[in-house]
Amino acid sequence: MSAPTVGEASEDELLTEIRAVIDEHNAAAAARAPGRTLLGPGDDCAVLDLTGGRTVLTTDTQTSGQDYLLEWPCGYRTRGFDLGWKSAAQNLADVAAMGAEPVSLVISLTLPPETPVAFVGEMARGYAAAVLALGAPGCSIAGGDLGSGGELSATVAALGLTRGEPVRRSGAREGASSRRRDRGPSGGRAGSAAGARTPPGSVRGDGDGALPRRRAGRPGGLPARPCPPLALGPAMAAAGARAMIDVSDGLLRDGGRVARASGVAIDLREEPLNALVDPLREAARRLGADPWEWVLGGGEDHGILACFPQGAPLPEGVVAIGSCRTLKQGAPPVSIEGRAREDLGWDHFAAEDRL
Amino acid sequence: MSAPTVGEASEDELLTEIRAVIDEHNAAAAARAPGRTLLGPGDDCAVLDLTGGRTVLTTDTQTSGQDYLLEWPCGYRTRGFDLGWKSAAQNLADVAAMGAEPVSLVISLTLPPETPVAFVGEMARGYAAAVLALGAPGCSIAGGDLGSGGELSATVAALGLTRGEPVRRSGAREGASSRRRDRGPSGGRAGSAAGARTPPGSVRGDGDGALPRRRAGRPGGLPARPCPPLALGPAMAAAGARAMIDVSDGLLRDGGRVARASGVAIDLREEPLNALVDPLREAARRLGADPWEWVLGGGEDHGILACFPQGAPLPEGVVAIGSCRTLKQGAPPVSIEGRAREDLGWDHFAAEDRL
Repeated sequence: MSAPTVGEASEDELLTEIRAVIDEHNAAAAARAPGRTLLGPGDDCAVLDLTGGRTVLTTDTQTSGQDYLLEWPCGYRTRGFDLGWKSAAQNLADVAAMGAEPVSLVISLTLPPETPVAFVGEMARGYAAAVLALGAPGCSIAGGDLGSGGELSATVAALGLTRGEPVRRSGAREGASSRRRDRGPSGGRAGSAAGARTPPGSVRGDGDGALPRRRAGRPGGLPARPCPPLALGPAMAAAGARAMIDVSDGLLRDGGRVARASGVAIDLREEPLNALVDPLREAARRLGADPWEWVLGGGEDHGILACFPQGAPLPEGVVAIGSCRTLKQGAPPVSIEGRAREDLGWDHFAAEDRL
Repeated sequence: MSAPTVGEASEDELLTEIRAVIDEHNAAAAARAPGRTLLGPGDDCAVLDLTGGRTVLTTDTQTSGQDYLLEWPCGYRTRGFDLGWKSAAQNLADVAAMGAEPVSLVISLTLPPETPVAFVGEMARGYAAAVLALGAPGCSIAGGDLGSGGELSATVAALGLTRGEPVRRSGAREGASSRRRDRGPSGGRAGSAAGARTPPGSVRGDGDGALPRRRAGRPGGLPARPCPPLALGPAMAAAGARAMIDVSDGLLRDGGRVARASGVAIDLREEPLNALVDPLREAARRLGADPWEWVLGGGEDHGILACFPQGAPLPEGVVAIGSCRTLKQGAPPVSIEGRAREDLGWDHFAAEDRL
């Protein structure tokens, strides 16, 4: 007897598969963050109490064949758990990059009829596990939507609360003197586009910035199970970060977004980036690839690139990788030791893979 | 020269097409609801101020071929505008059914490469137009996500704020005396599953309930452009509604959800429902269909089924259509003049269309 599929199950049967996981998660989350999620799944909407801070809100879709592969070239088969994990992580990374703590997720799933019901249950477990393992145990899974379709797809909307003002992309400043110059930004595990496990990197500026260190023993590391450093978001905000961004489309491309939004130029230093490149050199050599392309252009790193005022102490695990300088006419928004590498970065719609 | 498609455009070009519409909408929305949406699209997250009430949160996906057809059997071709409109309306209907006023939407689009860029721009206009026309002019479009895929799909997450407590599905009660009995619920334009334009219906209980009247001259009416009565949600909540639900899967099925959540039986009266059935009789006769199936089982009506305490005056436009009674072992949760019609209602995953 083959395992039951979505096409053979009723909506109620599917919900039962999911709700067992979600309800258990939510009971635990409510104990950790009492009074935030007042009503979870089962009504027209979830109900939240979002007083006491600023609410940040983001959404992201993971579509089969685009944002992940059901079977990777290396032979790894994406499990429902991986997909739920990644779908949660992508959104939680955006929440953290505003300096906020995640409060709640809602999930909308489009499921082909041949999807095993057990795969959907595994997805639910992946969402719950990611929320816990990535360091947002009080974050509820407040509801969602189930629909049928030809392509497996998972969309999350995530909400978070900040203690102070959210940290935007646009706050980086170069200073009048070196003491006032903003530190270049960072955070993020570079190289994940190649599926590599890399040590942490980080950016300081001349001006400094930083990338959080990847902790040994944390789950994930496969391209299907990213581990954004959620706790560093509020920590960097509390440490005075003036601009932050989730590095999801490559360090150069996302650095360019911060630079353009802030009206500064970001110059990265080679030496701290070498700590990211070195562990990739052997793999890159075997594949005939440039490890710098992985570190600078690889997507889905999910580190936080942050800019700090000169002199602000960086939180633990954050490494300075560059500086914020005056943006000059015709000069690149992001450079490495003064040289441009604008060709790197991920565009979801580009006809050619720009990597 | 053919019109440019998503596959030919960069992400920036696509964003430009969308942002022109969204930015204009958001500037107007901010003037109408100052201080709520503090940061719109362009950063990792939107920033909202959701103090002063309870936040309600919902999400819904519209997938091509499932939730809408790019070409309907009647020959009507779904425009981007229709899809944006419907995608907004579905979610705003859920917000209203909690008694909340919409505050903000985020939108995640999955776009096949062959999608014309102009279609995507039309979608953005559809979102903005629906928000205005349906009566939520202060609701921002706070951000979103663009991705590529094989199937056109639009997911919205919508946030709203209530003035008092949100109205859940579970609050309906049958009273010890007729004066205390809850009125049966309603709201919603029945028959839209058949694409018909019907007069409003509404439900009162023995106990009473009500369906909002459809206003002449409002846009919409096509299956692709539903018009949920958003303003009635907060109005019904203010009038003392104890339970509410968005009627999206059919009056009987959604009525059953209220009944089960509340632990009551809902009995509908034939006479007020006749006002919904009568205009459909001729069309049903020609198609060899039962107009009662359309009224009782048709999905995507997007009325609000509400239960009021006995004696509470119903808001304007709301009609009593039934009553809340004691739930008896083995008896159906929803009946019409005491008779069961449990076969009607829409299950997204049912192997057979249960209609």
